[in-house]
Amino acid sequence: MIFGLSLRCVQKPFELTILGTSSATPTRHRYPSAQYLRMDGAYFLIDCGEGTQMRLVQYNLRMQKIRYILISHLHGDHFFGLPGLLTSMSLFGRLDPLTLVGPPDLEAWLNHTLEASDSRLTFPLHFVPTQTEKAATVLEEEGFRVSSFPLRHRIACTGFSFEETGPELRLNVDACHSKGVPVEAYQAVKMGEDYRKLDGTLIPNAELTLPGHKNRRYAYVSDTAFTPDLAPLLQGADLMYHEATFMHDLLERAIQTFHSTSVQAAEMANLVGCKRLLVGHFSARYSDLQPLLEEARTVFPGTELAIEGLEISL
Amino acid sequence: MIFGLSLRCVQKPFELTILGTSSATPTRHRYPSAQYLRMDGAYFLIDCGEGTQMRLVQYNLRMQKIRYILISHLHGDHFFGLPGLLTSMSLFGRLDPLTLVGPPDLEAWLNHTLEASDSRLTFPLHFVPTQTEKAATVLEEEGFRVSSFPLRHRIACTGFSFEETGPELRLNVDACHSKGVPVEAYQAVKMGEDYRKLDGTLIPNAELTLPGHKNRRYAYVSDTAFTPDLAPLLQGADLMYHEATFMHDLLERAIQTFHSTSVQAAEMANLVGCKRLLVGHFSARYSDLQPLLEEARTVFPGTELAIEGLEISL
Repeated sequence: MIFGLSLRCVQKPFELTILGTSSATPTRHRYPSAQYLRMDGAYFLIDCGEGTQMRLVQYNLRMQKIRYILISHLHGDHFFGLPGLLTSMSLFGRLDPLTLVGPPDLEAWLNHTLEASDSRLTFPLHFVPTQTEKAATVLEEEGFRVSSFPLRHRIACTGFSFEETGPELRLNVDACHSKGVPVEAYQAVKMGEDYRKLDGTLIPNAELTLPGHKNRRYAYVSDTAFTPDLAPLLQGADLMYHEATFMHDLLERAIQTFHSTSVQAAEMANLVGCKRLLVGHFSARYSDLQPLLEEARTVFPGTELAIEGLEISL
Repeated sequence: MIFGLSLRCVQKPFELTILGTSSATPTRHRYPSAQYLRMDGAYFLIDCGEGTQMRLVQYNLRMQKIRYILISHLHGDHFFGLPGLLTSMSLFGRLDPLTLVGPPDLEAWLNHTLEASDSRLTFPLHFVPTQTEKAATVLEEEGFRVSSFPLRHRIACTGFSFEETGPELRLNVDACHSKGVPVEAYQAVKMGEDYRKLDGTLIPNAELTLPGHKNRRYAYVSDTAFTPDLAPLLQGADLMYHEATFMHDLLERAIQTFHSTSVQAAEMANLVGCKRLLVGHFSARYSDLQPLLEEARTVFPGTELAIEGLEISL
């Protein structure tokens, strides 16, 4: 029983690794945007700046496990690494299908690039265009849902929200057994349903379940001007990544370029009510990121820097 | 006089830096093909695999000095780094023109890429398409000439030859002075011409000049099957880079994929009669390159490995 109980209690992996965190141009130690996300058995790549495939190799992350690639927008520092990664996947003999989510124009460009470079993918690539007008579900499979939401940038740009959708209740197996609930009904009970016996008796769900873990959520807020009206949509995210291209003394520059400052990222974290905030997409002008972190922490203490190689478990 | 003499004798810089040396897919320590070449005041980038701009930053090489970019062929490991580099040059405010030499299809792809990524170059880009049928001069300016020559690969591919074209003779100033040669005639004399005085007397060039330095030449032999009939064209190169994707036990694989082995690269060096051979474009299967080097040296002792960061002065 203890073994079974411990199995039911264990949290599934929900792990993020930062691959690139520079804005616009790379620096000696920072590559353009890319993140690697694992939600249990599903592996995602979020944005794919130049050099992403090198970072995957350097951090011992297996590129072939990636099942979904999501591109926030078509500025080069967010997608110029895509052709190299896809052709490497092919050169290593990939057969598993891959889903690519991104702005509509990405598909034609990618096809042109593959054709120009005499490349043929060895695996099926399914393209899902993002909507830039309103929030939308872009991926939904057993156990998770990924939504996109529009951001305010110089060109069409979306953020992404990654949510667990599994049952939040644990089955009280002893209670189910003693009350005669058959195994076939367990899944429905875990999803919160009451159970009605053949004789018509209703057993309330609360008598058959125990509190389980809350479904977790990661929000990726890519390049954007400060957009407080986004907060209700991201309410309750466990972890939010928010771009913080500039320190707050460059607020005017941030406004002009449709980017955010570290203080604005932290303000968004307060509005969203997230547990932790990760800031990244740092301007190449900052070699020392500590002042940027300290500035954000004055507004939202639970801030961390998206340093390349950093692994965060939700 | 000694000061003047030493000035005339000094060799102009002719320096190569290896930026990337992996074939097809990058490895933990090797990036795809790219080389940085300086010929006196002219800076060239030869091929531009993904991550080239990062390597330039890592090796403290100023991207804005590059005046000419030459792309051997349109396999991704030789040109996927181009959009990132060109847009970074623009983001850093480049105004100086840049000449891009490469296969004809490169131009349309690059234009599509710039358009798709909402990028506008801040500098004039002049495109020179390469010929894939026969050798041709692609760049010629004071002091140097760059030629392209067809290679035998799966797709159209050219190598490049970089030659100094300055005068190979040093002026014997004392002799010119004593024989009454005016300063206006010095340039012609340095180029090898005799001088005819106003009274009709001919002074042979040999009496007015001293042996100078020989014009140097670097030959870049990109992806190719073993092509011995190329040797006469490259005769007398001081340094030849030749791809050596495989060790010789994988000769069959080299033939199938239109690549060369380390032994074949060394055989080409003997046929060309070059002074030094640099081998690169190593298959990702080799983590230790020493056996590949040793194998090549059994055939051509003056072989070196194109290791990233290596600087070679001709």
